[in-house]
Amino acid sequence: MKKIFFTPGPSQLFFSVQDHIKEGLKRNIFSISHRSKEFKKIYESCIIKLKFFLEIPENYNICFLSSANEIWERIIQNLVLNSSTHLVNGAFSKKFYDFAIMNKIDAKEFFYDKVEYNENELVDDELIALTLNETSTGIMCNSNKISSIRKKLNNSLIALDCVSGIPSIPFNISDVDTLYFSVQKCFGLPSGLGVWIYNEKCLEKNKSILDKKITGTYHSLTNLHNKTLNFQTPETPNVLAIFLFSRVLDDMISIGKDRIIRETNYKSALLYKTINDSNYLEEYIKNKSIQSKTVIVADTKKDSNYYIKNLELKNLIIGKGYGSNRNQIRIANFPSHSKESIELLCDELINL
Amino acid sequence: MKKIFFTPGPSQLFFSVQDHIKEGLKRNIFSISHRSKEFKKIYESCIIKLKFFLEIPENYNICFLSSANEIWERIIQNLVLNSSTHLVNGAFSKKFYDFAIMNKIDAKEFFYDKVEYNENELVDDELIALTLNETSTGIMCNSNKISSIRKKLNNSLIALDCVSGIPSIPFNISDVDTLYFSVQKCFGLPSGLGVWIYNEKCLEKNKSILDKKITGTYHSLTNLHNKTLNFQTPETPNVLAIFLFSRVLDDMISIGKDRIIRETNYKSALLYKTINDSNYLEEYIKNKSIQSKTVIVADTKKDSNYYIKNLELKNLIIGKGYGSNRNQIRIANFPSHSKESIELLCDELINL
Repeated sequence: MKKIFFTPGPSQLFFSVQDHIKEGLKRNIFSISHRSKEFKKIYESCIIKLKFFLEIPENYNICFLSSANEIWERIIQNLVLNSSTHLVNGAFSKKFYDFAIMNKIDAKEFFYDKVEYNENELVDDELIALTLNETSTGIMCNSNKISSIRKKLNNSLIALDCVSGIPSIPFNISDVDTLYFSVQKCFGLPSGLGVWIYNEKCLEKNKSILDKKITGTYHSLTNLHNKTLNFQTPETPNVLAIFLFSRVLDDMISIGKDRIIRETNYKSALLYKTINDSNYLEEYIKNKSIQSKTVIVADTKKDSNYYIKNLELKNLIIGKGYGSNRNQIRIANFPSHSKESIELLCDELINL
Repeated sequence: MKKIFFTPGPSQLFFSVQDHIKEGLKRNIFSISHRSKEFKKIYESCIIKLKFFLEIPENYNICFLSSANEIWERIIQNLVLNSSTHLVNGAFSKKFYDFAIMNKIDAKEFFYDKVEYNENELVDDELIALTLNETSTGIMCNSNKISSIRKKLNNSLIALDCVSGIPSIPFNISDVDTLYFSVQKCFGLPSGLGVWIYNEKCLEKNKSILDKKITGTYHSLTNLHNKTLNFQTPETPNVLAIFLFSRVLDDMISIGKDRIIRETNYKSALLYKTINDSNYLEEYIKNKSIQSKTVIVADTKKDSNYYIKNLELKNLIIGKGYGSNRNQIRIANFPSHSKESIELLCDELINL
């Protein structure tokens, strides 16, 4: 049997990726000029499909960068002059806060230790940073909470980290001003592409601070935005990734976002049931309203290596706890993971 | 006949790339965690092979970024506090100068209009920016000139843009403190990876300015360097590109750098002879000491589209003049372009 990767990213490739790479090779897509009409068509069609698939409102734009890490940096450079507020519930939301500090921003950290965000303790700021799904801890933010925060903080730009959440965890895009993700999580693609979505309010904010700070060079929002209107990137981009993303969007559109969300819910219920049925595993997040549907984290009574090694013998590859946590495992539940593969994993997991 | 791409980047893939992608897919390389031992091995072996192939001295380090554009930005952020000197002979060297200005650096531009660099008019500065091969104009810098500049400017960091030059145009790496390139030119890979090489003097300079400016976040030199010592990147990198680069280095090592340089010289001589023999084409750069061996630029008497379209009918894809220049063509002569393919192109070109 071929290995199945349940690691929380990079992860299992979407089932069609191999065929799309072969098509790209056959059609010389990886040799064409990034300034050619042919590339512009690929770029444009990728944007159109993404807007359709995610139901992105008209006043939002999309551009391509190299990683979500880069997008953190560009958000701080381009949308924040003095201060930002970061809702932290794991290592990645903490890192975004650290990025702000490194950029000499007066950043405030609100730490939510396995509890839900509380909008009542927040006040408006230049930027409010939320996370749809914390990949390190398996903490999710549900759609209603995002709406409540939007209502409370109407004079802030709200940024939503969607790295391991989109499109599997639903939310209302109009509730946030900017959102971003990388393609190696729920889109099942090889790593090396970040997607940044931002609305007109972000552009206005950017304009208002342009002459007050350094907003970057080739990837300043101004430069990215001007180029993306013409279906171009400032630099030679990862053409292969943009092509594959466009193709996988075709596949996901034909499956449908609702079905992807429904199956995500079903598979996550199965995984949590298995964890609860096991004598040696325990849900790390027990509060259902913040329990992630896409990155399932379990505390382990035995050393996590026991589970990882035993499942590897069955060609099932799961993730370890984030950082050096040796008493935790993490299991990705992305659209690439079929119901059958999750059932197979659960059958093995319960017997360990 | 399958198309052959002589565009100056992205360009023809190296002959073995397709097989390496298939191997990567088969071995699940694009699903493995970028924090796994398996990825570290790929990274380490790529670094070892690159050091061996390019004969990189011991006191130089290598790290991976997303593009040469990014490396321009990181050099300015990390190695320059106040001022830099840019030797400009085309659009890309000009862009690096522009990046410095955007970063509020007191940057000085020395413009060489189709003439060789003149070290006598230069004085030491924090950073001196040279270009091994200007992709926009087809102007090369030869090894002796780089050595002369090094001798004259001993108290500067010298940065060499090797984007469309390495490994086809030889020079002495010890003559420069930092060099960089992207893999979609002479290495014949899909675009989306930049390679930054820097010596101990760069690290010292970086340390001396750390508390005086913002040197970046995840891709500050400090962070990149600490990670690369452990065969890691700060972000989830383009794993596919690093894997392919490592594999193509195997192939290039077995061919040998000297043979690649010899064949580059032979093929460029053939291309320039064809241009000189044609009644409708003229070398853009006539001075042999700065005439590029890897990006051959010709002025065209007819509109450049005439050549581009007619060659396309024969499945030979060449580049147009940089920007909106409609009376120029550009032809890449990279290791991916076999002698036979260049001979084929020359046979068609002379008959147009």
